[in-house]
Amino acid sequence: MTAGTGRLGPLLSPRTVAVVGASPDLRIFRGRTLQVMLGHPYAGRIYPVSRSHAEVQGLRAYPSVAAIPEPVDLAVLIIPAEFVPDELERCAAAGVRAAMILSSGFAEAATPAGEQLEARVVAIAGRHGMIVCGPNAEGYANTAAALCPTFSPAVHHLSVPLVPPWRTRGHVAVVAQSGGMGFAMFDRGRARELPFSYVITTGNEACLETFEIVDHLLDEGRTDVFLLYVETIRDRPRFERVAARALAAGKPIIAVKIGKTPAGVRAARAHTGAIAGDPAECQALFRRHGVVEVDDLDEMVDLAAAFSLHGDRLPAGPRVGIGSASGGGGGWLADACGAAGLTVPILDAATRAELDKMIPSYGSSQNPVDATAQAIVQSGYAELARRIAASDAIDAVIMIVSARISASFEREQHDLAEVARASAKPIVLWSYTLPSADTVRIVSQAGYPLFTSMQSCARAVAAMAHYRAVRERLRAAVTPPSAPSGS
Amino acid sequence: MTAGTGRLGPLLSPRTVAVVGASPDLRIFRGRTLQVMLGHPYAGRIYPVSRSHAEVQGLRAYPSVAAIPEPVDLAVLIIPAEFVPDELERCAAAGVRAAMILSSGFAEAATPAGEQLEARVVAIAGRHGMIVCGPNAEGYANTAAALCPTFSPAVHHLSVPLVPPWRTRGHVAVVAQSGGMGFAMFDRGRARELPFSYVITTGNEACLETFEIVDHLLDEGRTDVFLLYVETIRDRPRFERVAARALAAGKPIIAVKIGKTPAGVRAARAHTGAIAGDPAECQALFRRHGVVEVDDLDEMVDLAAAFSLHGDRLPAGPRVGIGSASGGGGGWLADACGAAGLTVPILDAATRAELDKMIPSYGSSQNPVDATAQAIVQSGYAELARRIAASDAIDAVIMIVSARISASFEREQHDLAEVARASAKPIVLWSYTLPSADTVRIVSQAGYPLFTSMQSCARAVAAMAHYRAVRERLRAAVTPPSAPSGS
Repeated sequence: MTAGTGRLGPLLSPRTVAVVGASPDLRIFRGRTLQVMLGHPYAGRIYPVSRSHAEVQGLRAYPSVAAIPEPVDLAVLIIPAEFVPDELERCAAAGVRAAMILSSGFAEAATPAGEQLEARVVAIAGRHGMIVCGPNAEGYANTAAALCPTFSPAVHHLSVPLVPPWRTRGHVAVVAQSGGMGFAMFDRGRARELPFSYVITTGNEACLETFEIVDHLLDEGRTDVFLLYVETIRDRPRFERVAARALAAGKPIIAVKIGKTPAGVRAARAHTGAIAGDPAECQALFRRHGVVEVDDLDEMVDLAAAFSLHGDRLPAGPRVGIGSASGGGGGWLADACGAAGLTVPILDAATRAELDKMIPSYGSSQNPVDATAQAIVQSGYAELARRIAASDAIDAVIMIVSARISASFEREQHDLAEVARASAKPIVLWSYTLPSADTVRIVSQAGYPLFTSMQSCARAVAAMAHYRAVRERLRAAVTPPSAPSGS
Repeated sequence: MTAGTGRLGPLLSPRTVAVVGASPDLRIFRGRTLQVMLGHPYAGRIYPVSRSHAEVQGLRAYPSVAAIPEPVDLAVLIIPAEFVPDELERCAAAGVRAAMILSSGFAEAATPAGEQLEARVVAIAGRHGMIVCGPNAEGYANTAAALCPTFSPAVHHLSVPLVPPWRTRGHVAVVAQSGGMGFAMFDRGRARELPFSYVITTGNEACLETFEIVDHLLDEGRTDVFLLYVETIRDRPRFERVAARALAAGKPIIAVKIGKTPAGVRAARAHTGAIAGDPAECQALFRRHGVVEVDDLDEMVDLAAAFSLHGDRLPAGPRVGIGSASGGGGGWLADACGAAGLTVPILDAATRAELDKMIPSYGSSQNPVDATAQAIVQSGYAELARRIAASDAIDAVIMIVSARISASFEREQHDLAEVARASAKPIVLWSYTLPSADTVRIVSQAGYPLFTSMQSCARAVAAMAHYRAVRERLRAAVTPPSAPSGS
């Protein structure tokens, strides 16, 4: 095992990690962080550093970072804020290359003492060329390395692997100033079979900031979708450069920017010392650079699920075909599609003729296609989706399903996977009942994002279509119209 | 056991039910409906009517309704559409007082034959004064009677009782033209410990329509919140009369009206033969009568949860106090509150002084109150909520919690219940992690609606405040300002 390459390799893919302040007490963060790390099969070496214990949680502990018998890539600092700068100096002197500062009580405390401490951290990091994440961060999870230097309960005592074993692509990285929100994206996304490459929380961003991390992850190439929780954009030229890189690479950035209201601005300032900036200006900046802005945690995870599974087949336009066993659901979802800026056109005659062969007279093939429960029982969701997706009148398909009971999806699994593979258009599912975990796994594995919120579902399809349009405009702008691109 | 009183008693609270078309084949609706009914401890008597079987699913079957040895209150019809009118005549001749028609193939088929069949149903019902629900309905569930004449999987093989045993008030009735959507509200709401009094699906509403049912349920007095899925309002004067009654009684009607887009209009027409009407006109009508209009299934259930637990203590204004262990969550939710029309003001000095005693220096008492994880571990959510709720600067409290693990809520259960009981203001919870079923039960039982969508959470608080304001305006209008009311 070697440290990851790139400037942030020692921080995010270290071979050796010192946990400064590690404790045997599992009720406190200093104990919990080591406990969480030891709960995953990280192949590197972990060194507790403790003044008061010779052994912590079964590992030999060292009185200082300097006493550790080999070079340390990353030091995780969980000690009171007032001791952090001196410890950081000692880390630098011992050759430590990166630090993750979990301690709070810096600029976010809004006291002269806190601000001074943070200024000292910045100065030390600068002087030694040390990579410093935080302070006031909640650590991170690198799923490929099974390394979780964090006290977040979200990656502790998991009953499932960090990444669904069947997922090989469509990886999602979270970069968040808020530990609670960052790991909440993991908590909600993992339950939906999303494969996370990283969850990285950055707190006050005294030194290292979100878009430097995104830049690194773009270099590394293991991430296809970015979920960002942003309280402030400190380096606007870097943001513009990194956002342009991500857009050119077709790796969507889905972001929430806090500070749209006075209370939001206040909260960001109190949380990480962030200056939120003008919301309208930020919104325009995001739009210009193809960043997908969201306002809700659910919607964020929903968008990630859509782009993760369908990033390579975004809708060519806003026209949606809706297939349903519930006629009532079709009408409701059609209205939700309209609100999201999508259209639900009447299907072409050839497609309708094909559909009418499988739909009883009291159903409808017009669109929404009300196949009725009887047709679904007889022919299955896959066949209905296939016939709708074949229509030239639409760019994407939303299938309305009841995912509470997995049995029918289990029976159809092979056909569903076949239809998803063969379709050049994205097909997504909205379930009106609460899905069972089995159904979520089965349909995700077959290639279908499964939504429970109809609004989010409609917005996800609209966002996918919009993202494709932005990229195509970009390509048209860089390619002279007389010289068609070779792609 | 006696049939319920009121005109709809024989339909909704029958002593005797005939299931016409009942079959031993559990794969078809005709078999499933009887099976679902037999899966619940209904105390009345069920009579299968079958031409081909002397016994169905262990019950003696009768060749006709007339052969049943006692008067039948309700006949459930699951036979092909073309046989329905004649069967309805036979039912009337045998003294059956009400019919629920589950068969499809009437006006929604948009064929002359279908429309003729529906016209015959209307004529027969009118001639005999028979209460007829449907056709093209999915039946209903009367939870108090444990009577579920429906083939909906949502009330079949439940692992829990139809109503959470601890709930004694705040009952929710669903009335929906769509069976899929109506029972989906139950499916989602039951998982959140909502107590449903009824789920009633009405299909084409050839005779009996939604607001006649709401009127009956208002008389009956077992329902506190109404969830309506409406494709058409057939009798506008009745709607206005019933909506006014519900508003005066303080029993909120939460409704979705399908048909805001051409595709939605088309779907409603194909689904139940409904003429959707002008959406703007309908919206104005709803607003004028205090009907809470929603656009999303999730939001609908969220609003029901809020009104069900807090109907008696709606916020007096739009000012929200936010308490959180996650500073990041506070900022995000504050922005969501702003988008929903709520405000998040800085708290008064006295409240802040009380809060500062429990919050470390790197937290914040301003609002959002970032108590930090440390303070929550030490003092608990209940104590934080209590101190925020005491402030005169706010009308409602939203607590941001992590509900994934139930242990801390279990420990705090008593304190949480105490705070909820003592507070004159509604306190609701938003969880950034996915709640466990145990946490949902514990906090619901302690008196707190638990949301997972921050947008829905903010909108629910806004809707509660708005509903109270509408009612107070109404009261002011009927009470002369010089004569203060005695309440």
